[in-house]
Amino acid sequence: MNTFGNILRFTDFGESHGPAIGGVLDGFPAGLTVDFEHIDAQLRRRRPGSSQLTSSRRESDAVNFLSGIFEGRTTGTPIAFTIANSDAHSADYDVLRHSFRPNHADYTYTAKYGFRDHRGGGRASARETAARVVAGALAMQLLAKEGISIKATCPPSIADDIRRAKAEADTIGAVVECTVKGVPAGLGEPVFGKLQAMLAFAMMSINAAKGFEYGLGFGAASMRGSECLDTPYRDSDGRIRMRTNHSGGIQGGISNGEDINFRVAFKPIATLPLPVTTINDEGETVTLNVGGRHDPCVAPRVIPVVEAMAALTIADALLMAKASRPL
Amino acid sequence: MNTFGNILRFTDFGESHGPAIGGVLDGFPAGLTVDFEHIDAQLRRRRPGSSQLTSSRRESDAVNFLSGIFEGRTTGTPIAFTIANSDAHSADYDVLRHSFRPNHADYTYTAKYGFRDHRGGGRASARETAARVVAGALAMQLLAKEGISIKATCPPSIADDIRRAKAEADTIGAVVECTVKGVPAGLGEPVFGKLQAMLAFAMMSINAAKGFEYGLGFGAASMRGSECLDTPYRDSDGRIRMRTNHSGGIQGGISNGEDINFRVAFKPIATLPLPVTTINDEGETVTLNVGGRHDPCVAPRVIPVVEAMAALTIADALLMAKASRPL
Amino acid sequence: MNTFGNILRFTDFGESHGPAIGGVLDGFPAGLTVDFEHIDAQLRRRRPGSSQLTSSRRESDAVNFLSGIFEGRTTGTPIAFTIANSDAHSADYDVLRHSFRPNHADYTYTAKYGFRDHRGGGRASARETAARVVAGALAMQLLAKEGISIKATCPPSIADDIRRAKAEADTIGAVVECTVKGVPAGLGEPVFGKLQAMLAFAMMSINAAKGFEYGLGFGAASMRGSECLDTPYRDSDGRIRMRTNHSGGIQGGISNGEDINFRVAFKPIATLPLPVTTINDEGETVTLNVGGRHDPCVAPRVIPVVEAMAALTIADALLMAKASRPL
Amino acid sequence: MNTFGNILRFTDFGESHGPAIGGVLDGFPAGLTVDFEHIDAQLRRRRPGSSQLTSSRRESDAVNFLSGIFEGRTTGTPIAFTIANSDAHSADYDVLRHSFRPNHADYTYTAKYGFRDHRGGGRASARETAARVVAGALAMQLLAKEGISIKATCPPSIADDIRRAKAEADTIGAVVECTVKGVPAGLGEPVFGKLQAMLAFAMMSINAAKGFEYGLGFGAASMRGSECLDTPYRDSDGRIRMRTNHSGGIQGGISNGEDINFRVAFKPIATLPLPVTTINDEGETVTLNVGGRHDPCVAPRVIPVVEAMAALTIADALLMAKASRPL
Repeated sequence: MNTFGNILRFTDFGESHGPAIGGVLDGFPAGLTVDFEHIDAQLRRRRPGSSQLTSSRRESDAVNFLSGIFEGRTTGTPIAFTIANSDAHSADYDVLRHSFRPNHADYTYTAKYGFRDHRGGGRASARETAARVVAGALAMQLLAKEGISIKATCPPSIADDIRRAKAEADTIGAVVECTVKGVPAGLGEPVFGKLQAMLAFAMMSINAAKGFEYGLGFGAASMRGSECLDTPYRDSDGRIRMRTNHSGGIQGGISNGEDINFRVAFKPIATLPLPVTTINDEGETVTLNVGGRHDPCVAPRVIPVVEAMAALTIADALLMAKASRPL
Repeated sequence: MNTFGNILRFTDFGESHGPAIGGVLDGFPAGLTVDFEHIDAQLRRRRPGSSQLTSSRRESDAVNFLSGIFEGRTTGTPIAFTIANSDAHSADYDVLRHSFRPNHADYTYTAKYGFRDHRGGGRASARETAARVVAGALAMQLLAKEGISIKATCPPSIADDIRRAKAEADTIGAVVECTVKGVPAGLGEPVFGKLQAMLAFAMMSINAAKGFEYGLGFGAASMRGSECLDTPYRDSDGRIRMRTNHSGGIQGGISNGEDINFRVAFKPIATLPLPVTTINDEGETVTLNVGGRHDPCVAPRVIPVVEAMAALTIADALLMAKASRPL
Repeated sequence: MNTFGNILRFTDFGESHGPAIGGVLDGFPAGLTVDFEHIDAQLRRRRPGSSQLTSSRRESDAVNFLSGIFEGRTTGTPIAFTIANSDAHSADYDVLRHSFRPNHADYTYTAKYGFRDHRGGGRASARETAARVVAGALAMQLLAKEGISIKATCPPSIADDIRRAKAEADTIGAVVECTVKGVPAGLGEPVFGKLQAMLAFAMMSINAAKGFEYGLGFGAASMRGSECLDTPYRDSDGRIRMRTNHSGGIQGGISNGEDINFRVAFKPIATLPLPVTTINDEGETVTLNVGGRHDPCVAPRVIPVVEAMAALTIADALLMAKASRPL
Repeated sequence: MNTFGNILRFTDFGESHGPAIGGVLDGFPAGLTVDFEHIDAQLRRRRPGSSQLTSSRRESDAVNFLSGIFEGRTTGTPIAFTIANSDAHSADYDVLRHSFRPNHADYTYTAKYGFRDHRGGGRASARETAARVVAGALAMQLLAKEGISIKATCPPSIADDIRRAKAEADTIGAVVECTVKGVPAGLGEPVFGKLQAMLAFAMMSINAAKGFEYGLGFGAASMRGSECLDTPYRDSDGRIRMRTNHSGGIQGGISNGEDINFRVAFKPIATLPLPVTTINDEGETVTLNVGGRHDPCVAPRVIPVVEAMAALTIADALLMAKASRPL
């Protein structure tokens, strides 16, 4: 199932070394004047080689829109786009055709499908997330019309940690924090459509994500109830607000008008710049040396991906809320 | 959206103080001889008053199956069931009709729907999770046929913490850990159907859940890649296994045949056995005193709910895998 | 898959001779004051024994609402309801346990599920449509708020045909025509969500339906293009209208503001009041005599079912249109 | 909603005069060796200019596969493809920017979306059906593995009718008949997933379709029950068969192992090779002259589209049946 969302539905396709990756964004309202510069800017933040902290692999990531936009405006019909895979180096991956890299999807895809496109991780490559960034940027532009903004960050000290890991020929994990401002009260649905459940689903679908928490998160597990209360009050504009935001902007699965904040834990990149011992599909022990052009850490490149998935989730909840407005 | 799952679809309904809660489980295979005793046993584990650690509210929780089972066996058609709400005490809640309890869904439901069933939290009550336990027990029985078992626990020391919080007229959070054994390699789907994303969605849809992690979880964020590798090998039966299980049984979104393990963080129960200051729907400050029959901690009662949601998720993934088996 | 609709989702359950049939209507907007009398009135129109033209089987069809309605108003949460199966006579059906009635689902359910609830057709019984009538009546009440009304009819002469067929110990088919008035232009979606496709799906899901057509229907197949044109004009209120309505109110899959009209063909009831020759599940020839309390024609009882399915379809399209309104 | 199917899901995109049309086919099993020649052959049957009976517009319709196929075999991941729009002539359509052609989607799209891509009908153009033919051809190849074949036809005499209509500067409708052979008993689902409902939805989503019927169809409405019975028997191989096939291969919504047959009525092409009087978006009367390169009849070009939609429907039902196989 390669489709995300209920009303705003994003279908994502493509393998790392096929002709192109891309996606189809369906259910997007008509009439938005698309800011193509903003889409490119988000893609640049995700692109390898965009800082010394990332790999030197070049991806031009030029988006080619095929439908759903006419004379610069969205038409309400599916917005399809592709991003060509220009820097393939497929032959680099021949060594992987019959071997299973540790902590990758090589073995599990083979177990599921009987064989796999082994080049660069195929469908399991993080290359796919570029398509999410395009769709997410469109969702962000929709949200901006409603006064909603999204910003993800990782700790400033991570740059030092990344440099150190790189110097030591190792990789490192990261926690990315994300804040959504301007969300009106009332988004999200009871029970299985809780806003935090949708955000968790969105974030845990990103490669290398190992954990999700919102508001007080795991910290709340060792707290007392009396420490966690968010007391409501009516502000000078007559709006109901909370004096604190332990709840992270969501109560009972529905936004309460405060900032939504959550954190996503990512494991270290599994591809090490060192030889690793594993097995091939005959079960024989082999030594692989696949490193070279890989990142030492998913951060900072994963930051625009987190923002994109948050944008798709919140925009979908916003459209669902329009459909279910009380009489 | 009150439906969970793709092929095995569970639709859940009911408010805390309406006539009944219940659900419809669609897509369940025909031919399972239902173990009704097992369903009741799971419900008893969730029931209040089942130990000194939980509240004294009585819920009889007798399940009434309406369809989809004939002469003790599932027929392949929707399995509908209800659980009557017998111990209502609705008048206890009159005080809540116009007031917003802190950290509850009272304000957010009103913001979303214009009004709400205020009795006992209405749709936002954890009462609803009894229906999940019924559906989950059926899913567990299906999984048992395939050799898959599920077990959730909380730390043994939590009983002391709960007693202490209760004595201090407070409530406390908890982390519940869950392990799924016997899952074959190949469950889960690429990209948006990753098994960890489905599990995160399932768990974060449970009331009071604030965080989800699997395998190394948040701990992975501060680790080095060289510490996290799970090296595959072929065991004496010719099966591919992993020497360690840092990945928590899932790689690239797809099960690898090792135990799946994850943890869910729950916040302290928001209903304190003490007066709390809040506002009513006119924005006026009021003092509420709603405690009394409430639990001091979601654990241990949430444990069978975690198991139920894990069972529904894994059973759905299992049926999806049957549909997508390679040619 | 026993769920109908995209945003307004109706999940239907129950077998003819189980404890109850019923359904869950999810996505219904909050705040509608429910007219229970109207629901009962629609059910009465569907009930057997309601005229001399239908069978003498008694079904009391009292609806029991379990959730989603509070103090007479919809709350926005799932509306679950049951209708008890009071007049069971299950023993009448023992003869069917191992036999396949011609033109019924007896053989196909057995082929699909390995066994079946044979009593009264089980899940395949038209008894299930009573639940559709309840959900459809709620949808009609929602549509009435927007000025939309639905009316189905069958030819007045059908009463004579039915009496004649009954006298001849036979059954007869019927065509039901339905008109939806007051639909605004703009409902329906391009390509796979075309309004006529959704209506066709809804109608062909009714037992015994063999055909669907809208506007000129099958007649258009033998017409010239020059005979079919609906010329638009601006009326005195400035509204765009069509001079004729060959299109049946839908163009390019989207409503054009004219009346929507369509017809559904139903085959004769398969249960004849005469012995029929068939086989049992051992392949042996048997003679069955199951008639007696059965209708000679689906009309007029199917009329409120057609209206109900039209109401669910149009209400779903209306809510989808709210979600996709242009910026 | 531009996605078709439940497990085998086809998302379709593109406008007539945008850069490309195309689609994403998700849920397709891994391991099929793709017959690209067969795909091209099906496309050629749909292509304008392929016979004297169709228009002279040239569409090269070269399919460009982007993902989901590796070394000639399906990988189990989404199969995305595009077909470039090479013969655009967009300027031909400037006259339509502000005018509403009768019986087209011009007015309804404008009512729904506020504006539209007016070039060649935009999203409402039958150009989009080329993408369905590609996806359907892949589904057919999957079905062929299971011994299932699909063939649609129109009456042989239609060639004369088309020539006559063309000579008279008019257009004409058609009925297309389709037969599916080799379907095992047990496909389709009770109630809302009835196989005939899915087929009706599929067919009525094709441009210009006005009616659908299966088996005896509308004819059954004026028949007696005693004339319609399909008597089952056990054949010499021990298989249960029907002596007649009035039911069109489906009983109770589920296939019975006989040939599935249905008919689809198409209206005459709305674009006439003559000036037509209509209004523009200011409500002023205008005369349009848009004909020239248009077909006089949807048949024969729509035949491979009917086959494609039948193939997608049956393949989806086949995969659903695998998921719901009895224990």
